[in-house]
Amino acid sequence: MSDYDLLETASGNALVTAIDHGLALGATEGFRDPEATLRAVLDGGPDAVLVGPHFARRYGGVIAEADADVVVTADIVTNSTRPGFDDGQDVWTPAFDPELLLDVDPAGVKIVLVFGRDDREMFVRNLSYVAEMAEALRGTGVPLVVEPVMWGGRVPAELETHPEYVARAARMAWEYGADVLKLPYTGDVETFEPIVEHSPVPVMILGGPKSGSTAAMLSNVEGAIASGARGIMIGRSIWKTEDPTSVVRALDGIIHEGKSVDDVWDA
Amino acid sequence: MSDYDLLETASGNALVTAIDHGLALGATEGFRDPEATLRAVLDGGPDAVLVGPHFARRYGGVIAEADADVVVTADIVTNSTRPGFDDGQDVWTPAFDPELLLDVDPAGVKIVLVFGRDDREMFVRNLSYVAEMAEALRGTGVPLVVEPVMWGGRVPAELETHPEYVARAARMAWEYGADVLKLPYTGDVETFEPIVEHSPVPVMILGGPKSGSTAAMLSNVEGAIASGARGIMIGRSIWKTEDPTSVVRALDGIIHEGKSVDDVWDA
Amino acid sequence: MSDYDLLETASGNALVTAIDHGLALGATEGFRDPEATLRAVLDGGPDAVLVGPHFARRYGGVIAEADADVVVTADIVTNSTRPGFDDGQDVWTPAFDPELLLDVDPAGVKIVLVFGRDDREMFVRNLSYVAEMAEALRGTGVPLVVEPVMWGGRVPAELETHPEYVARAARMAWEYGADVLKLPYTGDVETFEPIVEHSPVPVMILGGPKSGSTAAMLSNVEGAIASGARGIMIGRSIWKTEDPTSVVRALDGIIHEGKSVDDVWDA
Amino acid sequence: MSDYDLLETASGNALVTAIDHGLALGATEGFRDPEATLRAVLDGGPDAVLVGPHFARRYGGVIAEADADVVVTADIVTNSTRPGFDDGQDVWTPAFDPELLLDVDPAGVKIVLVFGRDDREMFVRNLSYVAEMAEALRGTGVPLVVEPVMWGGRVPAELETHPEYVARAARMAWEYGADVLKLPYTGDVETFEPIVEHSPVPVMILGGPKSGSTAAMLSNVEGAIASGARGIMIGRSIWKTEDPTSVVRALDGIIHEGKSVDDVWDA
Amino acid sequence: MSDYDLLETASGNALVTAIDHGLALGATEGFRDPEATLRAVLDGGPDAVLVGPHFARRYGGVIAEADADVVVTADIVTNSTRPGFDDGQDVWTPAFDPELLLDVDPAGVKIVLVFGRDDREMFVRNLSYVAEMAEALRGTGVPLVVEPVMWGGRVPAELETHPEYVARAARMAWEYGADVLKLPYTGDVETFEPIVEHSPVPVMILGGPKSGSTAAMLSNVEGAIASGARGIMIGRSIWKTEDPTSVVRALDGIIHEGKSVDDVWDA
Repeated sequence: MSDYDLLETASGNALVTAIDHGLALGATEGFRDPEATLRAVLDGGPDAVLVGPHFARRYGGVIAEADADVVVTADIVTNSTRPGFDDGQDVWTPAFDPELLLDVDPAGVKIVLVFGRDDREMFVRNLSYVAEMAEALRGTGVPLVVEPVMWGGRVPAELETHPEYVARAARMAWEYGADVLKLPYTGDVETFEPIVEHSPVPVMILGGPKSGSTAAMLSNVEGAIASGARGIMIGRSIWKTEDPTSVVRALDGIIHEGKSVDDVWDA
Repeated sequence: MSDYDLLETASGNALVTAIDHGLALGATEGFRDPEATLRAVLDGGPDAVLVGPHFARRYGGVIAEADADVVVTADIVTNSTRPGFDDGQDVWTPAFDPELLLDVDPAGVKIVLVFGRDDREMFVRNLSYVAEMAEALRGTGVPLVVEPVMWGGRVPAELETHPEYVARAARMAWEYGADVLKLPYTGDVETFEPIVEHSPVPVMILGGPKSGSTAAMLSNVEGAIASGARGIMIGRSIWKTEDPTSVVRALDGIIHEGKSVDDVWDA
Repeated sequence: MSDYDLLETASGNALVTAIDHGLALGATEGFRDPEATLRAVLDGGPDAVLVGPHFARRYGGVIAEADADVVVTADIVTNSTRPGFDDGQDVWTPAFDPELLLDVDPAGVKIVLVFGRDDREMFVRNLSYVAEMAEALRGTGVPLVVEPVMWGGRVPAELETHPEYVARAARMAWEYGADVLKLPYTGDVETFEPIVEHSPVPVMILGGPKSGSTAAMLSNVEGAIASGARGIMIGRSIWKTEDPTSVVRALDGIIHEGKSVDDVWDA
Repeated sequence: MSDYDLLETASGNALVTAIDHGLALGATEGFRDPEATLRAVLDGGPDAVLVGPHFARRYGGVIAEADADVVVTADIVTNSTRPGFDDGQDVWTPAFDPELLLDVDPAGVKIVLVFGRDDREMFVRNLSYVAEMAEALRGTGVPLVVEPVMWGGRVPAELETHPEYVARAARMAWEYGADVLKLPYTGDVETFEPIVEHSPVPVMILGGPKSGSTAAMLSNVEGAIASGARGIMIGRSIWKTEDPTSVVRALDGIIHEGKSVDDVWDA
Repeated sequence: MSDYDLLETASGNALVTAIDHGLALGATEGFRDPEATLRAVLDGGPDAVLVGPHFARRYGGVIAEADADVVVTADIVTNSTRPGFDDGQDVWTPAFDPELLLDVDPAGVKIVLVFGRDDREMFVRNLSYVAEMAEALRGTGVPLVVEPVMWGGRVPAELETHPEYVARAARMAWEYGADVLKLPYTGDVETFEPIVEHSPVPVMILGGPKSGSTAAMLSNVEGAIASGARGIMIGRSIWKTEDPTSVVRALDGIIHEGKSVDDVWDA
C-alpha cells in the first residue's frame, strides 16, 4: 500500500488530535481559549492536529513551531441553527474551497459522511461532496479522509458503533472516494479487525463525545491499533481532560511504540 | 452496427460480472472481503467486471492481471440514508466526474434510469443525467450503458420485468442517449426478442437480486442470448453462490460458445 | 420575412412528420419498430422528420437516403414517471445540449412551452429554457420551433384549441424567442387566420393525439394552409393510420400544391 | 448628475411608450396586431418604446424608421401559468441574457422588483437579479431601469401607490443597483417630490392598468414632471385608448414642453 | 497581529458609522434624505462609513471629500417581502459581486451570519457565503467583516447579547472565515473581555436598533473599548439622534482618545 505523508512515521501510524470543534460548537467548555487548548495539545507531541482552514491560518505559526502537521476540515456540521446547540438534526454545509484547503499545505482533508438522516437531499449532497472532493484532491498527494458516521435520527444512538453499520459505512466511504477512513471503533478487536482488513485504504479511529474515562478511551485505541488501524483522530477525549498534554503522550506510547494502556496510564 | 471494444469478442457478446454493489449496499453478505470476491469472479474469466471507479483504482492491479476489462458505474443508488438498508425508495446520486471515469480506461460507463418514482424531480435529474453523460462520452469511444429499471414505488414488483414496461423503458433509454442497454429479461424469448430487434443499440441483461437457482439464472441468460442479446451484466446471482468461479465459466459457455444450460451446468 | 432552409421549398411551406414520440411514450402502438415506422413515413416524401437527437444519430443514414431534413426535439415530456403512462401531469426535462442538437445538422430545434401547469416552478424553468435555447441558436441559422400547448391541468381539455388561448400562447412563444411556431389549429380559418397574420414568425400546426378520421385531419391542414400557415408537424395522425405513406402523400398535395382534401383523399 | 442617452433630450426628459405587454399577457385587447399598435404609438413620436428583446428583433426596422430608441425588458412576469390570465400571484422569470439585450442596442434595460410576495424565495431571486443585472450593465453605458412595484398579495391594492411604500421601494431599488427608477406615481406633487429629490438616480413613472380617463393619466404625468420626474414609461393608458397617436402627442407637450393638461387635451 | 488599513489609525481603533440601512429598510425615519444623513454623519469625522455598494457609487464624491473610508455591505437582509416592514423572519440575499465590491476600493466588506433561523437551508447558504466571500477576499488586503447575530426566531430576543451566545457565534464566525468580527456587546467588560481575548481577529461592536439614550450607547462603547474591542460599526444610535455630528465626535473621543463618557457627553 503506497502511503501518504501523514502515515510516513516510524511506526507507520499517526496520532492526530482533533481540535476543529469550533466549526461545530463555537466556543465550548475546554476550548474557549483556542490558543491555550492548541498549545496544551501540541505539548504532547501529536503528529498532526485536525483543524478548520481558518484556524490553520490564524494559528499556523504556533503549529509550525511544534513541528506538527495539519489535517484540515472541509465541511461544517452544526446540530442547530443556534450557535453551539444540539437540536437533534445535523445541518451540514460543504464549506471550504479546495484552493483554500490546499493553501494550508495539509497532510489530509477531512469531511464527514452522515448516514441515517431524514433529509434525503442533504444525504445526496453529502455523498456528492465526498465524490467531488476526492476528485479535487486526486493527484495532489493530499489524501481525502472521510468520516462515515451514523448521526442521523434514523439510526438509534446505540447502533452508531455497531460492527454491521460500521462495516457497511466504511465500505461505502471508500467506494465514494475516501483515501483514508476515520471510523467509529466498534468496541473490540474481534469485530473491528475484519473491517480494517477488508479496507483497501488505511483506517484511523474517531473519538466521539467524551463519555468515559481516559483509560477506557486509551483501551479503545489499543484495541484499534491491535486491529490494524493506523492511528487516531480524537479530540474531546483529549482536550476535555484535565491534562491534555499527558493524554497525548500516553496515546503516543500506544500508537507509535506498541505499548499497552497499563504501560502508559495510571487508571 | 459499429461496435465498441466491449463487444469485440470472438462471439460478439460480452460476459460482464457486476461487482459494484458496495456503492449501494456497503459490505454485504458474500462481498465483505472485496478482493476475495473479485478474485473468485475473475478466476472464471469474465470479459469485464462492472465496478465503481474507486474500486477500479484500488483493485486495478488485480483486474489487469486477470486481463479483464472494466465497466465503471457513474451513479450511486442507495435504498435508504442508512447504510445498506432498504427503506423502499431509492436515493439516487449522480456521483462521479467523467474525468475520473475515463481515467480508469473503461470499456463502458454505466448508469441507471429509474422509472416509477414518486419523486418527479429525482426522475427529471436522472433523465437529465442520462442525456448529459451521453454527451460527455460522445466521441470518446466509450459507450454509455443505461440500465432502465422499474424500481419506483409506482410500479408493482411483479411488473418490473413485464414486456410492455421493458419495451417502453428500453426505447426511452436509447432515445435519451444510451449506447448499450442493460435490460431486465422478460422471462421468455417470445417477448424479449422483439425488444432486442427493435433496439438500434446492443442489449445486455441484468441479473437482479439473487432469487432462484443458478440453473434458472443460466436459463434466463440462454433465453436472452437466443433473443439476440449481446451478453450480461450480472452480479449477485454469481457472487452470492457457493462457487462464483464455476458460475462465471458456465455463463461463458452460454454466452460465447452458444451452449445450453444442460451443457454447462448440473442442476 | 427572411426564411429558414426548412421553409425554402417551392411552395414556401413544409411538411414535417413528427416521429419523436419515443421520447415521451417509449415503444408505443404503431411505433414499436422505429425503423419500420420511419421508412413508412419517409416513403411518402416529407420535407423533414421531427425526431429526438439520438434517433437522428441512430437512423441518420435512413433519413439521408430519403433526402429528408431533420427537425430535432430538445426537451423530453413524459406524463408519468412510469414508462409510457399518463398520470395527468407532465414531467418536463430540458434534456439535450445545443452542441449535440446542432451536430445532427438540423433544419430546426423544437421545444414545448406548456401552459396551465399547477407547478409554477416547472413553468418558470420551461419559459427560461425557451429564452436560453433561442439565445443558443441565435446566429446559427437554425430556427427555434416552439410549441405552445395548453396541457396543464388548469386548462380544461376542451379549451386547448380555443382561439383566445392559442392567440395568447402564440404571442408569448415568439416574445420569449420562437423563430417558428408549432400551434394547435383552432378548427376554422376565421379564428386561425388572424393568429397567423399577427405573428411576425412563420406558423405551422401540430396534430395532437389521433382522435378523428384522416379526412378530418386533412381538412384541418387545408384550413391551416388557407389561414396562412406554412406547414405542419404532425405525427400520430399519420403513423397510427394503416397507410402512413399515403397519408404523407395526401398531405403533400394540400401543403405544397394547394389541393383540397377532396383532391387528395377518398373519405 | 451624469445622464444616459435616454435622457439626453432637449428637455432632459424622456417619453417612453411601454409596449412589452405581450410578454405578460400574450395577445391582448388593443394589442392583438403587434405591428398596428406599434405604428400607432410611433406615429405620436415617443423618444423610445419599451419592448421585449424579441419584439425588438422582429420589429426593429419599423422602430428605426420612426427614429425611436428601444428600452428592453429583461424579465417576464405572468400572473398565471395559463396564458394571459390573472390568478392573483405573479410568476416571475429572469429570462433574457445580457448579450441578447445589449445586441438590440438599447437605451435601457428594464426589470421589475416585486414587493409583497408570499413566496420569499422568488423575492430573493428577484432581488439577486437586480444586483446581477446592474453588474452586467455596469460600464456598458446602458442604464438599468428598475420598476419597484407592490404587486404581491401581502400589500393591499389600495396601498400600491402609497407614498410610504413607494419611497421605501424606490430607495431599495437603487440601493440594489438601479440606474433609473420606474415608479408608481403617488397621486400628488406633495408626496412625490420628496421621493424624487431623495433619489440619486433619475425617476420616471409607470402607468399601471388603464383605469381612468386619459385626462386623469395626463394629469398624473403633469404632476410627476412637476415633482422632478424625468419622464414616463406608460403603456396601456396609451395604446388601450381610441387614438394612441394623439395621446402620445399630448404626453410630448407635457413632458418636453412643460405644457399643462389643459394645453394638450380636450377632456 | 498584522492589521488592515481600516485599523491603521493612531489609536489602532476605528470608528465606522453604519448607514447601509437603505438596503434593509428603504427610506426610513431619520434617513429619508440619504445625502443629508450622510453629510451629518461625515461632519463628525468618522474613520469610515458602512454603506451598500451602490450607495458608495452614488455618493462616493461626498465621502471622498470628507476623507472617510468605505466599508461595504455585500448582502441584503430584509425582514419582509414588503418594503421596510418587519414580519418576524429575515429574508437574506447574498447580493453583490466581489468585483463590484472591490471596485469601490473598500476598507472592508461586511456580511451578516444569522443564527437561530427556522429555515435551515437559508442558514446553510449564509454560512457558505461567509466561506466563499472569505475566499474571494483572501489575498486582496480587504478584510471580511462578519457580523454574527442571533436574529432568528429560535433565539429569544433577550438572549441576543448573552455572553454564551456571543462567544459561540464569534468563534464560529472567524472559523468560517471572518477577518474582523462585528459583535453584539454583551453589556459589561467582565463578559466581553474574554470574548475579545479569545479571538485571533479584531473585534468591533454593532449598535442594534436605537433603544436607549445616547449616553447608554456611549457607555457600551466605552466598555467595549475597555474590553479590547478595536472600534465600532454603529448606525441608528447615531443618525436617529437629533445631532449625529456631535454623537460621532463623542464616539471619537472614546474610541481614539481613551476618554470616558463623562468626558465627551452631557447626559
